[in-house]
Amino acid sequence: MEKSRLEKQFDFCLEIDKEKFIGRQTYLSDGKRKENDAEHAWHMAIMTVLLSEYANEKIDVLKTVTMLLLHDIVEIDAGDTYTYDEEAKKTQRERELKAADRIFDLLPEDQAAKFRGLWDEFEAGETPEARFAHTMDNIQPTMLNAATNGIAWSSRGIRLSQVLERNRHTAEGSKTLWDYSYGNFIRPNVEKGNLIGDV
Amino acid sequence: MEKSRLEKQFDFCLEIDKEKFIGRQTYLSDGKRKENDAEHAWHMAIMTVLLSEYANEKIDVLKTVTMLLLHDIVEIDAGDTYTYDEEAKKTQRERELKAADRIFDLLPEDQAAKFRGLWDEFEAGETPEARFAHTMDNIQPTMLNAATNGIAWSSRGIRLSQVLERNRHTAEGSKTLWDYSYGNFIRPNVEKGNLIGDV
Repeated sequence: MEKSRLEKQFDFCLEIDKEKFIGRQTYLSDGKRKENDAEHAWHMAIMTVLLSEYANEKIDVLKTVTMLLLHDIVEIDAGDTYTYDEEAKKTQRERELKAADRIFDLLPEDQAAKFRGLWDEFEAGETPEARFAHTMDNIQPTMLNAATNGIAWSSRGIRLSQVLERNRHTAEGSKTLWDYSYGNFIRPNVEKGNLIGDV
Repeated sequence: MEKSRLEKQFDFCLEIDKEKFIGRQTYLSDGKRKENDAEHAWHMAIMTVLLSEYANEKIDVLKTVTMLLLHDIVEIDAGDTYTYDEEAKKTQRERELKAADRIFDLLPEDQAAKFRGLWDEFEAGETPEARFAHTMDNIQPTMLNAATNGIAWSSRGIRLSQVLERNRHTAEGSKTLWDYSYGNFIRPNVEKGNLIGDV
């Protein structure tokens, strides 16, 4: 017998609990433990509510928040791919597409299509909401890296050029927030020697 | 010199990182570790997007999501008060009010007022959004308790009457979701002996 709409919704709601097990490379502000995907998404969702006034283009806040809340769900199957791990990044897209098929399809058809659509939109990065979501996805860990004296960078010998490459689209969501992040979080860590100033 | 609007916003964004250190009594779905406030809020925010169609009254989804994202921020100072700890509950309100004053006031005045307003509204529980938020706040841990064979209940000898007392307002946000939670998460755990069936 086919499951009811509500059963499918709760199946999904329980499944995504696993996002709390997916670790990232960013240290929390006490510098002791790294954050997980669910914590990261929660943080960016609040930041979006507070900082949407700085978006280059007007954004739909609920749409952007929802996109950020769900954008890492594929990592339940695909794992977190570290932004400076070039080998892992080669297979990332394929692993994540397969995960999206399985996980979003737990939902009733209309909600599966809606969530999958938001995830595809985030991945494509071509709408005001997706651009702002990527700005958040870059600035939130940068803020935490700066708050922990750059250990996530210095412990791996990360270079400024790598950080700038990762942030090449950050200003497209918000010029104001990128300028703040560069001036307050990134540049001071080059000066302190936590980021190798190669450019 | 007074801080700029953006500095105040980022001060708040960094401060709330501490919510990730506040542990709750609910076990995650693998039964190994208990969840923290940030994970709990993230989970309920997605659930609200998916389940708002079952609200008894029409709700503003962004408002409800924002309310849930921030409703536990006061616990950064006040700590998590376990729902069945009657001693701690006597001082909970006072501790949380003091925390709200300190933490929300990090924000620029307009956003401090907005967030404080949403927290006060959640606490009062008298609007459709606050009622639905409380429904989520009760159902999300109940779902996880059921998924972990009721250990959070059985390990503390919790009685059905206590669970019903905690859930006395759950149906006010959504009759449908309360019925589902009772039938699928609570009742089966009484039958399995994980909850003491005293009523």
